[in-house]
Amino acid sequence: MEPNPLRDPRDRRLPQIAGPCSMVMFGVTGDLARKKLIPAIYDLANRGLLPPGFSLVGFARRDWENQDFAQVVYDSAKAHARTPFRQEVWDQLAAGFRFVSGDFDDDEAYEHLRETVEELDAERGTRGNHAFYLSIPPGFFPTVIGQLSKHGLADQHDESWRRVVIEKPFGHDLASAKELNAIASEVFPPEAVFRIDHYLGKETVQNILAFRFANGLFEPVWNANYVDHVQITMAEDIGIGGRAGYYDGIGAARDVIQNHLLQLMALVAMEEPVSFSARALRIEKQKILSSVRLPARLDEHTVRGQYAPGWASGEKVAGYLEEKDISARSTTETYAAIRLDIETRRWAGVPFYLRTGKRLGRRVTEVAVVFKRAPHLPFEATAVEELGQNALVMRIQPDEGVTLRFGAKVPGTAMEIRDVNMDFAYGGAFVESSPEAYERLILDVLLGDPPLFPRHEEVELAWRILDPIIDFWHQHGKPDQYPSGTWGPSSADEMLARDGRTWRRP
Amino acid sequence: MEPNPLRDPRDRRLPQIAGPCSMVMFGVTGDLARKKLIPAIYDLANRGLLPPGFSLVGFARRDWENQDFAQVVYDSAKAHARTPFRQEVWDQLAAGFRFVSGDFDDDEAYEHLRETVEELDAERGTRGNHAFYLSIPPGFFPTVIGQLSKHGLADQHDESWRRVVIEKPFGHDLASAKELNAIASEVFPPEAVFRIDHYLGKETVQNILAFRFANGLFEPVWNANYVDHVQITMAEDIGIGGRAGYYDGIGAARDVIQNHLLQLMALVAMEEPVSFSARALRIEKQKILSSVRLPARLDEHTVRGQYAPGWASGEKVAGYLEEKDISARSTTETYAAIRLDIETRRWAGVPFYLRTGKRLGRRVTEVAVVFKRAPHLPFEATAVEELGQNALVMRIQPDEGVTLRFGAKVPGTAMEIRDVNMDFAYGGAFVESSPEAYERLILDVLLGDPPLFPRHEEVELAWRILDPIIDFWHQHGKPDQYPSGTWGPSSADEMLARDGRTWRRP
Repeated sequence: MEPNPLRDPRDRRLPQIAGPCSMVMFGVTGDLARKKLIPAIYDLANRGLLPPGFSLVGFARRDWENQDFAQVVYDSAKAHARTPFRQEVWDQLAAGFRFVSGDFDDDEAYEHLRETVEELDAERGTRGNHAFYLSIPPGFFPTVIGQLSKHGLADQHDESWRRVVIEKPFGHDLASAKELNAIASEVFPPEAVFRIDHYLGKETVQNILAFRFANGLFEPVWNANYVDHVQITMAEDIGIGGRAGYYDGIGAARDVIQNHLLQLMALVAMEEPVSFSARALRIEKQKILSSVRLPARLDEHTVRGQYAPGWASGEKVAGYLEEKDISARSTTETYAAIRLDIETRRWAGVPFYLRTGKRLGRRVTEVAVVFKRAPHLPFEATAVEELGQNALVMRIQPDEGVTLRFGAKVPGTAMEIRDVNMDFAYGGAFVESSPEAYERLILDVLLGDPPLFPRHEEVELAWRILDPIIDFWHQHGKPDQYPSGTWGPSSADEMLARDGRTWRRP
Repeated sequence: MEPNPLRDPRDRRLPQIAGPCSMVMFGVTGDLARKKLIPAIYDLANRGLLPPGFSLVGFARRDWENQDFAQVVYDSAKAHARTPFRQEVWDQLAAGFRFVSGDFDDDEAYEHLRETVEELDAERGTRGNHAFYLSIPPGFFPTVIGQLSKHGLADQHDESWRRVVIEKPFGHDLASAKELNAIASEVFPPEAVFRIDHYLGKETVQNILAFRFANGLFEPVWNANYVDHVQITMAEDIGIGGRAGYYDGIGAARDVIQNHLLQLMALVAMEEPVSFSARALRIEKQKILSSVRLPARLDEHTVRGQYAPGWASGEKVAGYLEEKDISARSTTETYAAIRLDIETRRWAGVPFYLRTGKRLGRRVTEVAVVFKRAPHLPFEATAVEELGQNALVMRIQPDEGVTLRFGAKVPGTAMEIRDVNMDFAYGGAFVESSPEAYERLILDVLLGDPPLFPRHEEVELAWRILDPIIDFWHQHGKPDQYPSGTWGPSSADEMLARDGRTWRRP
């Protein structure tokens, strides 16, 4: 096929190498930075995808010198990097390490930061291109963004860029999300704000797009004529661990549905974009999020739960209300399930069931497209009530891959049909190993390539969907208890039973 | 779902047990009888699917007593049965063994045979129900069928049945097939003539029907809107072995395409039958065979080949013309490939490519439904020319199962798509082991359940398709040579290249 000259001619087959730049990391002493971000930067360097003069500036309250910071980076890369350690890669990377000590509101520290990045521009040729990664609690976003602006660190000059990276949560409701977006957009233009949802950096999330649009076989049945319903599940087997301070008052819907599950739903449901560019994808995702209809009765088609004592990995575990630092009267949900409908021609009448929870049967994230039963079975008295529905399951984690469930004849002299699985395991099919989500996302920040980052419009649309549900929950009762290690409260099963359906046991 | 009272209420989930009956086997000393038929009968007995008084009468020229015959049956069951040997099953079965010695035209022998089956009716309660299995060269069919008639062995009485079973070839062209059908139909009504195509007793052939019609997912794309073409392949790695006498003058088209491949094509292409009954299936298969259009130019869209010396399993092997008992001037084809079109709304413009051959790369029988490419690729400059077509491959043998080939994203930071396989292996999915084709087919003969047996109309329709091609070949040139161990003559590749397609390398 001839390339279309009207389309973006970039060849996306080869990973691109980032141009000259640095990254300033706030909260560099935190868990995320040490376990994920720093190792990802080392791996990118090792893969030759960072520019020669790439520099990493740590910003934190510690009273460190550059070499203390270098040691922390070294330990973190050694412990958590995906690729082997190579001294020459390390030496080149380490020459660009700088550390700035200070509080988030400390003017002097930001002046020092400004001098540092200017020195880097001069010494290492980073050319005024700087990304600020805010790996810090969202309460500090306004302070840090304000300080970046005040000290001239956010100013974009000709031919150079400044970008800011923030991690979820992007607000806790529509109003706070708008507030946060307003703060960011006062300082940075929309295309310079990168919201990280690390789920969207996962290979299989992107594989959803490849799967749907690079194949001729699936798109024809990807609509209300053939699909009965869709189930999107993110289940965790762990409890809240030491995250009481973050989690209580937030809950499962804000923590997971607002970002991960609604983004997955948009990718599964959207129309084919005209290209894979950030803009074209955003248009299609926003169309889905704008077309969502909430259930007419929130009491019948939304469910929240809270884990009670039970079992996990063969051990007795405490319930949510017994967890450290959780009030015995907390009504924070650790399980949430909602039905959404998408009012488009493609999806009319096809419910999307989203659920997430902690302390469930096992850890799994998957999208299951469940198809209608065959309309006619010529097999005489074949036990049709035993026939399942075809399902196409895209597994995001663990064991990334695709499974197709269909009916096959049971060997034997009778015509009996039984459900079987056809399986594709992502890990088994490719010699290439998957880069970590953060590798991809950090590289995309440095490249300024934003297809996988939600824009503020999407964030606000997602809150528009969730706010009425959370409000309803606050006004009515409290979460239903479910024993740890089970698949959520019985009310969730009843919710699907009302529609004549059942949850998959993934 | 409520059962439809207008439909056949038989519950086909459980294998049915045959009613009182016997089977008379002509050619009981042959390879097929010893290696397949007798073991299948033992296995059926072992599975409890034969009636208690079931009797087996051997008919052959040997000068045997009943006990000699019993010994042959014993040796054969011991050596080739699928299920374990059980003495009590054997004892019950062996009590019904009888042997009749004689030539196929020996009146006295048939009188003896008549007395024998009448004795069985009296002694073992077989109630006049007798199946005559003609495991003999087709040249003897008229003689044996005539003798059965002459000696009253084919007479159907009230509440009893007589059936005749014949093995392919069913004639060698339309005229001879009609002649054979006329002979059989003079003596037996059409529903009493069972033509064995053992391929149709294979599990996966029946699985084609289950796969297509018990699932909601495949039928919507099973048509000319989405299917680019279909390839049906039966490849053997062996040569003709000791079968020169049978094979020379017959060739690949008559030996394989006329029966196996055209039947497979009919199963893949047919409309959904109103039920799985013999009659409903026959109607749909005949519709397909009646809708076939031959290529306008037989020189461009049919190919025949003959294996030359080459390699098989790492050993040098002789060419067809060097085989024992083959004339050095033989023009019998050992490879045949033809394009057929099916003139129905569902398949308009979708070619069906059928091929078969001996001494090919490996032994495999499969049906590959190859889908059109995705019409639009939003992945910018993703190398679309590298993108394959989705294909659904139904493997008949070996390793029965289903494979779906589709495009998935290659792990990495770029958007590269590569073809991968999703696989379902029949053997791995079920604890039930597949009965041998002959078990199923013999049981169906005894049950009088004919869905898997082609009727004379189908046989004649298949010859109607093949006759003009074979005539054309006889009038034009001779087969193209191909080295043993390759995938056929280069003219076969050219034939597909003319249509812008390539053969799969299975």
